[in-house]
Amino acid sequence: MYKLFGPVLYACGILACVIAGLLLIPAFFAWCADDQEFDAFFLSSACVAICGIVQLAPGYRPPFSLNARQLYLLTSVSWLQLSFYSALPLMLLDHPMSFSDAVFEAVSGITTTGSTVLSNLNQLPPSLLLWRSMLQWIGGFGVIGMAVSILPFLRVGGMRLFQTESSDWSDKSLPRFHHMARGLLAAYLGMTLLCSLSYALAGMDAFDAINHAMTTVSTGGYATDDQSMGRFNDTILWISTLFMLLGAMPFRLFIQLMSKHRMAAFRDQQVNAFLLIVCALTLMLTLQQWLSSEKPLFEILTHTAFNITSVITTTGYASQDYTQWGMFAVALFFFVTFIGGCSGSTSGGMKIFRFQLSWLFLRDQMNKLVHPRGTFAVRYNDKAVSDDIMGSAVAFSFLFFLVLTVTTLLLALTGLDFLTAFTGAATALANVGPGIGDTIGPAGNFATLSDSAKWILSFAMILGRLELLTVMVLLSPVFWRG
Amino acid sequence: MYKLFGPVLYACGILACVIAGLLLIPAFFAWCADDQEFDAFFLSSACVAICGIVQLAPGYRPPFSLNARQLYLLTSVSWLQLSFYSALPLMLLDHPMSFSDAVFEAVSGITTTGSTVLSNLNQLPPSLLLWRSMLQWIGGFGVIGMAVSILPFLRVGGMRLFQTESSDWSDKSLPRFHHMARGLLAAYLGMTLLCSLSYALAGMDAFDAINHAMTTVSTGGYATDDQSMGRFNDTILWISTLFMLLGAMPFRLFIQLMSKHRMAAFRDQQVNAFLLIVCALTLMLTLQQWLSSEKPLFEILTHTAFNITSVITTTGYASQDYTQWGMFAVALFFFVTFIGGCSGSTSGGMKIFRFQLSWLFLRDQMNKLVHPRGTFAVRYNDKAVSDDIMGSAVAFSFLFFLVLTVTTLLLALTGLDFLTAFTGAATALANVGPGIGDTIGPAGNFATLSDSAKWILSFAMILGRLELLTVMVLLSPVFWRG
Repeated sequence: MYKLFGPVLYACGILACVIAGLLLIPAFFAWCADDQEFDAFFLSSACVAICGIVQLAPGYRPPFSLNARQLYLLTSVSWLQLSFYSALPLMLLDHPMSFSDAVFEAVSGITTTGSTVLSNLNQLPPSLLLWRSMLQWIGGFGVIGMAVSILPFLRVGGMRLFQTESSDWSDKSLPRFHHMARGLLAAYLGMTLLCSLSYALAGMDAFDAINHAMTTVSTGGYATDDQSMGRFNDTILWISTLFMLLGAMPFRLFIQLMSKHRMAAFRDQQVNAFLLIVCALTLMLTLQQWLSSEKPLFEILTHTAFNITSVITTTGYASQDYTQWGMFAVALFFFVTFIGGCSGSTSGGMKIFRFQLSWLFLRDQMNKLVHPRGTFAVRYNDKAVSDDIMGSAVAFSFLFFLVLTVTTLLLALTGLDFLTAFTGAATALANVGPGIGDTIGPAGNFATLSDSAKWILSFAMILGRLELLTVMVLLSPVFWRG
Repeated sequence: MYKLFGPVLYACGILACVIAGLLLIPAFFAWCADDQEFDAFFLSSACVAICGIVQLAPGYRPPFSLNARQLYLLTSVSWLQLSFYSALPLMLLDHPMSFSDAVFEAVSGITTTGSTVLSNLNQLPPSLLLWRSMLQWIGGFGVIGMAVSILPFLRVGGMRLFQTESSDWSDKSLPRFHHMARGLLAAYLGMTLLCSLSYALAGMDAFDAINHAMTTVSTGGYATDDQSMGRFNDTILWISTLFMLLGAMPFRLFIQLMSKHRMAAFRDQQVNAFLLIVCALTLMLTLQQWLSSEKPLFEILTHTAFNITSVITTTGYASQDYTQWGMFAVALFFFVTFIGGCSGSTSGGMKIFRFQLSWLFLRDQMNKLVHPRGTFAVRYNDKAVSDDIMGSAVAFSFLFFLVLTVTTLLLALTGLDFLTAFTGAATALANVGPGIGDTIGPAGNFATLSDSAKWILSFAMILGRLELLTVMVLLSPVFWRG
């Protein structure tokens, strides 16, 4: 048992110490702004630090080779731990949140979903708003890191497609990861700075610019006002559109852009398909809106591009209540909820490459219908795709709909109507944010849901964020027998 | 061209002559009952007979070997032809239906979907009601025949799993097919007689008993009254439940039951899973209803069993408006819409064996997550499942959701609200009948939909009935280049 859990406990202990450190930032901010929440954040930081030290106490020391089972365990446990630790200050506020509400808000933050139970955001203590934005920023980086360093070594949902070199996770790979992680952090940090600078230049005040920059590049979607992005000008909406798109790109490409193979980044099949889909959907909906309303074309284009991008990148900002744009828009936004961005980005959803692989698989099957004895190699980004990778990508899609069904039924059992239950489950699993319907739509809020619904949705957000299988495997007997 | 189309034209000509003959039955009935629709049916019969003779005129004669391309063409063309021919009398009625309405009603009939644009059914001419029921009965037999004689030779959606002997469709297989077809027809006819007898004994009048028997064993769902089965007693509902279940069984099993290998029929993995799912869903919903209402347990069980069976077998009868049973029931009925019965039966949907294969596939993937180097053979009904069959079954599921998305978007473009568009698309593709919502729910009717929506739904019903790929392959350039 210790052999299995030891390294996991050690890694989680380190993580706890990092969170304790990060909690000092809103504490310091609260102290400067004198918004009465200093105690909440400082106390939480102390608690988390103590937990971390306790976890490190057994004194496990590297060598730090992790096998597949440990990687699964580490991934799930560390996100769960992150959820509870970051919910702690929310329960210690001047107006404390309930346990369920705090966990829901924290999970929605670190999974970069962006659904919220809070309202009258502009009257909340600034340090709380800052912590919410930071959660998404931290969660976003966590996902990129996980997608680059852990998932390609597991057989989860076809992610092996993005495996680069060795197939084992051991001390030998550490230096390469250190180098990679530094590059990714630099790109992520640089993008956030650039985004907040652009926001500020376009008219946001400093606090809003920093907060929104953190929730834009992490494709999270928490805002500092109940209107979400509805109160900002067109320039800001276009800046936001651009940075949401960048946040939904595979982050290893930004490192590649700085290397000597930079041209390869522009030929990435996933990115090209993603941009094509965003453009096609935006143009389609703009055209349909233009033909059926009186508004000027540019205004329609701005809001369509912004909201489509927001949902497809799984950010979840809204500039208007797009569910009032007519039946076609509602149906389109519903399906866009599932798509998601590129693999290796901060965005959620089913990811573009899985749709591409499924499509290639389907085309292959169609060819075989006519030429039963022909063989057709499936290629992706100039590499042959093994049956193995294809299989696990396709299995992911099947599992996604299975989990969606179960989650919807459970939510319906808590008394939610079908549309709220179904789109709520979808938006949580895809880490988007808003659903459809009066309650949880882009103009709504998750506050009125029952506690049981909030717990179901919290679990769904974590499941979705960890690509389902990473968590599900822990529930299978094979894992524990292994 | 003639080499490709010749045999298809010949087979379609034969089919037209059969339909012309069948149209004489309601004509005769109209003449006996003197309900003024004799002209409509007799004239249609004459027209269809002329068309048939024209198709046979080029004088193509067997040898009757068909290759894959011809089988695809034959399947799609014959169902399209069947739709238009059987819509003909509906446009020649005393109160004629519009072209769109007639085609919708006929397609809904022959695909055994059971959605209707007609209301005040009990005031319609009896010969028209008889023709509607006959359409479903004919359609039901057409599907069984197709599933046994054509689909296993094509690589459509994993149906090869049910291929028995030779892999080519040629004159040599004809005697075996003749034998098989006779057996199937006997089973189908016998079951219909038994069903109508049981209905009559339980209290239906002769006309209702015959009509409902035809739409029960074909899992079609057309009724002779707007209340569907709501006006009948509990005994009739249980009889109906039983025969709907029988209609959703693989019909080759009934032949097997009469052979010396009869015990094998009881070990069929698909049938066992199907019955288990029906029981589990019924018990689950009964329990939920019982805990939340005041009604007696047996009444709840009767209506739950009947309506769940009706939707899962894709019949589409209703004894009550089950969308009023609460949020959980609505969500459950929505997902049940997709499941469908067993392959080789009259029912539609995605079919039990595809869920089983997908589930086995998923379990296989889960095992591989923990034991990356292990090999796990997937077995179904004591036979190893090739990657090939697995692949095409999984591709089918993906295609189903893709077509569902496109159909929903098209329906939303015609102005339908999201719930109506989405559940309408699902119910048409799965050949169930009722959707969810006020318009097309179990208490509603498709009459108020726009013509364009009716055409989209008609096409979706045919797509669903022919297992999608059979039609889609005709749209691929590869097919015509072939």
